[in-house]
Amino acid sequence: MIAELVSVGTELLLGNIVNTNTQFLAEQCALLGLSMYHQVVVGDNKERLSEVIRTALNRADVVILTGGLGPTEDDLTKEVCAEVMGMPLAEDAHTRERIEAYFKNSIYKEIPDNNWKQAVVPKGAIVLDNDNGTAPGLILEKDKKAAILLPGPPEELYPLFYQQVRPYLEKQQKSVIRSAMVKLCGVGESMVEDKLLDLIDKQENPTIATYAKTGEVHIRVTARAGDEEGAKKLIKPVVKEIKNRFGDFVYSVKEQETLEEAVVKLLAKHDLTVTTAESCTGGLVAGRLINAPGASEVFKEGFITYSNKAKRKYLEVSKSTLKKYGAVSPETAREMATGGVFATDSDVCVAVTGIAGPDGGTEEKPVGLVYIATYMKDKVQVERYQFKGNRGKIREQAVVKALDLLRRSILEHYK
Amino acid sequence: MIAELVSVGTELLLGNIVNTNTQFLAEQCALLGLSMYHQVVVGDNKERLSEVIRTALNRADVVILTGGLGPTEDDLTKEVCAEVMGMPLAEDAHTRERIEAYFKNSIYKEIPDNNWKQAVVPKGAIVLDNDNGTAPGLILEKDKKAAILLPGPPEELYPLFYQQVRPYLEKQQKSVIRSAMVKLCGVGESMVEDKLLDLIDKQENPTIATYAKTGEVHIRVTARAGDEEGAKKLIKPVVKEIKNRFGDFVYSVKEQETLEEAVVKLLAKHDLTVTTAESCTGGLVAGRLINAPGASEVFKEGFITYSNKAKRKYLEVSKSTLKKYGAVSPETAREMATGGVFATDSDVCVAVTGIAGPDGGTEEKPVGLVYIATYMKDKVQVERYQFKGNRGKIREQAVVKALDLLRRSILEHYK
Repeated sequence: MIAELVSVGTELLLGNIVNTNTQFLAEQCALLGLSMYHQVVVGDNKERLSEVIRTALNRADVVILTGGLGPTEDDLTKEVCAEVMGMPLAEDAHTRERIEAYFKNSIYKEIPDNNWKQAVVPKGAIVLDNDNGTAPGLILEKDKKAAILLPGPPEELYPLFYQQVRPYLEKQQKSVIRSAMVKLCGVGESMVEDKLLDLIDKQENPTIATYAKTGEVHIRVTARAGDEEGAKKLIKPVVKEIKNRFGDFVYSVKEQETLEEAVVKLLAKHDLTVTTAESCTGGLVAGRLINAPGASEVFKEGFITYSNKAKRKYLEVSKSTLKKYGAVSPETAREMATGGVFATDSDVCVAVTGIAGPDGGTEEKPVGLVYIATYMKDKVQVERYQFKGNRGKIREQAVVKALDLLRRSILEHYK
Repeated sequence: MIAELVSVGTELLLGNIVNTNTQFLAEQCALLGLSMYHQVVVGDNKERLSEVIRTALNRADVVILTGGLGPTEDDLTKEVCAEVMGMPLAEDAHTRERIEAYFKNSIYKEIPDNNWKQAVVPKGAIVLDNDNGTAPGLILEKDKKAAILLPGPPEELYPLFYQQVRPYLEKQQKSVIRSAMVKLCGVGESMVEDKLLDLIDKQENPTIATYAKTGEVHIRVTARAGDEEGAKKLIKPVVKEIKNRFGDFVYSVKEQETLEEAVVKLLAKHDLTVTTAESCTGGLVAGRLINAPGASEVFKEGFITYSNKAKRKYLEVSKSTLKKYGAVSPETAREMATGGVFATDSDVCVAVTGIAGPDGGTEEKPVGLVYIATYMKDKVQVERYQFKGNRGKIREQAVVKALDLLRRSILEHYK
C-alpha cells in the first residue's frame, strides 16, 4: 500500500512553522509498513488544493490530509476533498451533539456560529471522534482509495491517529505491525551498526533500523504478523539479542522513556540521592533530571558554580588545584564531584566543567573541551570529552554524557 | 514571482528527520516577497524526481531543490534536473580544484573516488561555491525559469542561501526586500495585534506580521524598495512607532538576539551580577542565562533548591514560612529571592517555585501554579502565574517569565 501526505496551511508555505506533523505521520506510516513516495504542502486555495488531492489519489492508495478543518471560511479541506471524491455534504447529528458537549465544558458561553460548519461531513464518510477539539477526523473511501482528513493541531492529531487511524490502516493491510525500541547511550551509531551487521543483513521480519540522536543511538525493531501477539513474538528474541550484545549501553527498552527518566528510576531503585555541580552546563543537567516526574524523590539540591570562587565556596575545590590545573581540568572536575557529595550528604554527585565557547578556548584547552566526573561511595570517575559544534551543541552533548556517566557509575557500583 | 520548494530525500519520506530546511527556505522566500503555493518532498528516484521537477517548473518561476547532491550513486538531483532542463553535464575545473583543496584540509588522506562526481555540473549553470562541503550549489536557467540546487545539510545550505542565493533572487526581482524584528515579552499576541490594528490595516509597504513564541511575541516589519537603503528608510519609522507603543515590553530589535542575551546585556550594562534560586525549573533559568556568550561576567553562581531543606540551608527561607504558606507561595518565593542575594552578594536574584506536575497539585494549588520573585537593591517583586500544559511546557513558560521579570526589575530600578 502506498500512502501520500498532504499538509494544508498557509503558515507552512510562509515558513511560520515547521512541519512536524508530516514527520510524525511519515514515521507512523513507515512503522505500519506503508510505502511513501510524495509529501505535499499546499495552501487553503480551492483550485490548487483540489488539483493536489486529485494527483495524490491517483498515485497513492491512502492520502492523509492534515489541516484546514477549522471553523473559518478559509478552511476548505473537507469541502474540496468531498467534491473531488464526489461525496455530498450533510450535517452529522452525532458530531453536532459532540460539538455542543465540547462547548458546554469550555469557557465559552455561546457556541460561535461558524463552528456548526464542523458538524457537516461527507455522506458515507467514517467519522473519527475528536476528544481534544471540535473538528472530527474523517475517512472518505471510494474506488478502493481512501482520504483520511485530520485536524492540524498535534494535540488533536496524535490521539486521533493512534486510537482510530492506525487500527483502520492495519485493518486495510490485513496485518499488524508492531515495533520495539532499544535505546543506547555511550556508543556511536557506526559501532552499533557494525555490531548488528549480521542481524541487519539476515533478517527481513523483524527489520532493524538505527537512529542517531545527540549522544544516543536508538534501535527500532519492527515486525509484521497476523496479529499483535504474533508480531510481539517475532520482536522479543531480537530485542533480547540486542540487549545481550550491548549490555550496559542499553538504558531503556521503553519507547517513551527518556535518558533522564531511566537515570531517575535507577537512582530510586537503589534508594540513592543525587546532586549536581555544574559549571559550563550551568543548571541544564539538573534541569533535565528534574524533567523526569518523581525526580523530587532522588534530587534535593544542586549547584551552579560558574565562577572559581563559587567552586571553592560550595564545593571546596582547593585554591591550589584551580591555580595549578585550571577550572577546566580533570582535577577540578574530581574535586567538584567530591565536594558536591560532602556539601549535601547526597549519595552521588555528577560534576561538569568545560569550555562551551565561543570565547575562552586556548591551544591547550580548546573550545569544546569538557570534563565530567562522578563521585559515588568513595569512588571517583572522570571522563574527558572534546565536543564539536557551537555553544548550545557543546552544552547539549555535555548534559547527555553527564547523565550517562551518572548512570554507568551506579550500574558499576551494584555489579 | 512564484517559488516552489522541492526536498529530495528518503529520510524525509520515512519520517527520520523533520524538514527544517523547507521552513527556513519558505520563510526566506516570504521575506524576499516571493509567492509560494507548493512544497514537495520526493525520494531519490529518477522517474518520480523528474516528474516532480517538471511539474514544479511548470507552475513556478523559481524552483529551489535541496538534497540529493551527495557523492553516492543514490544522489540524483543534479543529474535529473539537468536532464529535465536539457543541459548536458561536464566537469567544472574550478569545482574540481575546490574539492581538492577541501580534502587537503581534512582528515582524509585520499579523496574518495566518488567525490569527483561532485565536480560535474550542467553546462551553463551558475556554480555557487560551497565553503562548508564538497557539493557546490547550482543555478540552472532556462526559458525565464530557474532551478536552484542546494545541498541538504543546514550548515552548508544556510550560508549558500544568505551569501549567494538571496542576492541572485533579489536581482531577478529588481527590488530589495529587508525586514526588521521587534521582540516583545510580557504581552500576549492578541493584545499586540489590537494595538497594531491601525498600522496593519493601513500599510502595504512595509508590512507587519506577528508571531507568537513561548511567552514572547515577535513583530516582523518588511519593506520592499529599489535598494537596501530605501528599504531600511521605510522600515525605520515603523519600528520606532512600534517601540513607542510597547515601551518596556520590547526586549530587542535585533533579529538574532534572544531574551537571555538581552537580559545578560542589560545586567552587564549596569554592571550587575545575578544569581538564581530555582525549585520547579531546577536549573533551567540559569541554563538559559548561561546560553548567552559572556554570561560569566554577570553570573557567578546559582542554586537549585528542590527540597524544603535546601531552601532553608542555602537561601535561609524560614521554617515557619514553609510551614505556614508552603513551598509554593509568594512568601517562599520572596524569601528565596532575598536569600539568594544575601548568600552570594549578587546584586539581583531571580527565584522560581511552583508545581510542574503531573503530581503534587491540589484544589487550592493546582498543577501549573508558579511564583516568580526578584530581589534587587532592597526591592522585592513577586508574580503569580497559572500555566497550562504538561510538565515540560509549564517549566518552559516559567523560565521565560523568570527571565522577563528579571529584565523588568532592572529596567524599573534604573528608570
